[in-house]
Amino acid sequence: MSQSAVSRTFTPGASVAPAMREKVLEAARVLGYRPNLIARSLITRRSRIVGVAVGYLRNQFYSEVLEVLSERLQARGYHLLLFIAPQRGDADPQLEEVLHYQVDALVLLSATLSSRLAAECCANGVPVVLFNRTTRGAGIESVTGDNLAGGRRVAEFLVAGGHEHFAFVAGLADSSTGRDRERGFREGLAAHGVTRIERVEGDYDFEQAGRAADALFARPQRPDAVFCANDHMAFAVMDAARRRHGLRVPEDVSIIGFDDVGPAHWAGYDLTTYSQPVGPMVEAAVALLEARLADSAAPAQHVVVPGELVVRGSARVPRDIVACEGRRVWRGDAAPAGSPSGRNAAQSDLEAFSPENGGR
Amino acid sequence: MSQSAVSRTFTPGASVAPAMREKVLEAARVLGYRPNLIARSLITRRSRIVGVAVGYLRNQFYSEVLEVLSERLQARGYHLLLFIAPQRGDADPQLEEVLHYQVDALVLLSATLSSRLAAECCANGVPVVLFNRTTRGAGIESVTGDNLAGGRRVAEFLVAGGHEHFAFVAGLADSSTGRDRERGFREGLAAHGVTRIERVEGDYDFEQAGRAADALFARPQRPDAVFCANDHMAFAVMDAARRRHGLRVPEDVSIIGFDDVGPAHWAGYDLTTYSQPVGPMVEAAVALLEARLADSAAPAQHVVVPGELVVRGSARVPRDIVACEGRRVWRGDAAPAGSPSGRNAAQSDLEAFSPENGGR
Repeated sequence: MSQSAVSRTFTPGASVAPAMREKVLEAARVLGYRPNLIARSLITRRSRIVGVAVGYLRNQFYSEVLEVLSERLQARGYHLLLFIAPQRGDADPQLEEVLHYQVDALVLLSATLSSRLAAECCANGVPVVLFNRTTRGAGIESVTGDNLAGGRRVAEFLVAGGHEHFAFVAGLADSSTGRDRERGFREGLAAHGVTRIERVEGDYDFEQAGRAADALFARPQRPDAVFCANDHMAFAVMDAARRRHGLRVPEDVSIIGFDDVGPAHWAGYDLTTYSQPVGPMVEAAVALLEARLADSAAPAQHVVVPGELVVRGSARVPRDIVACEGRRVWRGDAAPAGSPSGRNAAQSDLEAFSPENGGR
Repeated sequence: MSQSAVSRTFTPGASVAPAMREKVLEAARVLGYRPNLIARSLITRRSRIVGVAVGYLRNQFYSEVLEVLSERLQARGYHLLLFIAPQRGDADPQLEEVLHYQVDALVLLSATLSSRLAAECCANGVPVVLFNRTTRGAGIESVTGDNLAGGRRVAEFLVAGGHEHFAFVAGLADSSTGRDRERGFREGLAAHGVTRIERVEGDYDFEQAGRAADALFARPQRPDAVFCANDHMAFAVMDAARRRHGLRVPEDVSIIGFDDVGPAHWAGYDLTTYSQPVGPMVEAAVALLEARLADSAAPAQHVVVPGELVVRGSARVPRDIVACEGRRVWRGDAAPAGSPSGRNAAQSDLEAFSPENGGR
């Protein structure tokens, strides 16, 4: 039973023959031996712990990301330590708690956490990656979906579908993600001369989004096209439309979300939505973490992972729909040829994501 | 700036005045000081880390439990370290990885993880709590919903609703949780002379449950009452019934789940289900952990937290429905008065859960 076999047995991610592993573990059991985390971390300067601050897991996007991020880091010998933060940014996890565990890095997995914790960790030499939000703060990496192009894309799709009265269900005001989705939506509509957009606050919350939709659908000029800042709110808006206002979706009103979470393809909702591909986004975050752990001086990157408009049954569709890996997507471009919004949106669909070039 | 203020500032859960906290943190920033996890854990013999092995977070029950468990432990100065295990029990997290982090305890948050890891951790002196499953293994605590009474309750509700042809969509065979739910369901039906139950395998998986439902609804004698071993599968079964077989729910077929996860109250599903109350179940698990950390020799407890039949729109209802905290629940008992199944089921609804007496 060699030294190195013992060491490899107790080093997460290291390879060791199953039989040898069993032998080492049996010996360890008998001796009551335990690998000394402290000694190891003094040598490697690594705790092998990545902290992750999450907002609300009720939004399936975050539970899906948490599962995939955990799997990918686990395969590299790291594990996630959970710091739960209430959905609103006024009660982030405390710096000293994060430092206490000597995490190798911190991932902020929420559109709504304030940037204070991120800045504090950076100041204390803990690498930080923002996931699904971004910031101008120096040295703080970020991975987001293509919120701007996505919002624009949704606008063009709804215009191409012949809609006339548009509404936007906003998330929390302090979310860069929500702001970008709204900006893209407004730019996309403006490119077609549409400037009037009914706006209500859904706060990324299911109940609040339902109340906001009730107000929206009670107005004299009812919207026939509603874009929700995320899928989680779109489900509540569909419930309000169908259950409480007797509206048919999409015949009376088209509803579009953002994320493409699991329930979006459940037949009960069959939601048309702009996707945030969890796999590529997580890969991008892991690539940023590894680069930063290898070279703490590496410049911070802001990676934008392109998504696609996934066409399902919750919105009236224009004519030019194509099939793509079993899903229907819209590649057409309703914007006047060569218009800025049109060109960018088209590019975001064609461009392939690669961690090396930091996405697009 | 007192010694104790510094210590309290860096001790998770300890109270310290915000102003003093800021002062200490500022000084720490300037000095580049970091609390020494090792030194502390050598003194307290605590890493303040609780490992949690989770199966699949796509099933919202687990993401809801993870969020609440994390909140409650965080309030007590502990944080959760995530070990992701594939849904099937054949690839549990490895013992040495768990030991490497010197976790104070381990929670197995899955109905499908094998009991090997739990036994190994126990043998190595790491307290283990099984959540949503149980085992006969010595020294291993468990917290479950009332799977037996719940299955029985669903059977009695469906009989009282006048159903005649019953089906059960099973989870994975190696899940004690699923076995107990099925046993309760069979006992409840047997008490009314019903022994014929169509059985299909849903494997707790959305797609597999959909395929199983397709087979079920294609049979010459179509069931008019389907009990699914969890909500996650019930949503897939409702999709199959309504979307692919043109069945009306509940007019043509009643569908009942188990868990009462968030989407069960979304209008797109409005699922009748037997609840597993996340708050009380998590409180019970935390109480078990604290008792075990305080006294490692304390006898292992198996806590069963009662739920309730939450009546919504996915199943035909009998006459005697009562309102309870804004939800409709069924308190009636269709079993012959005094029959064992009847009495137990009634008790499980009336009994209040309390961590002290370990529930029921």
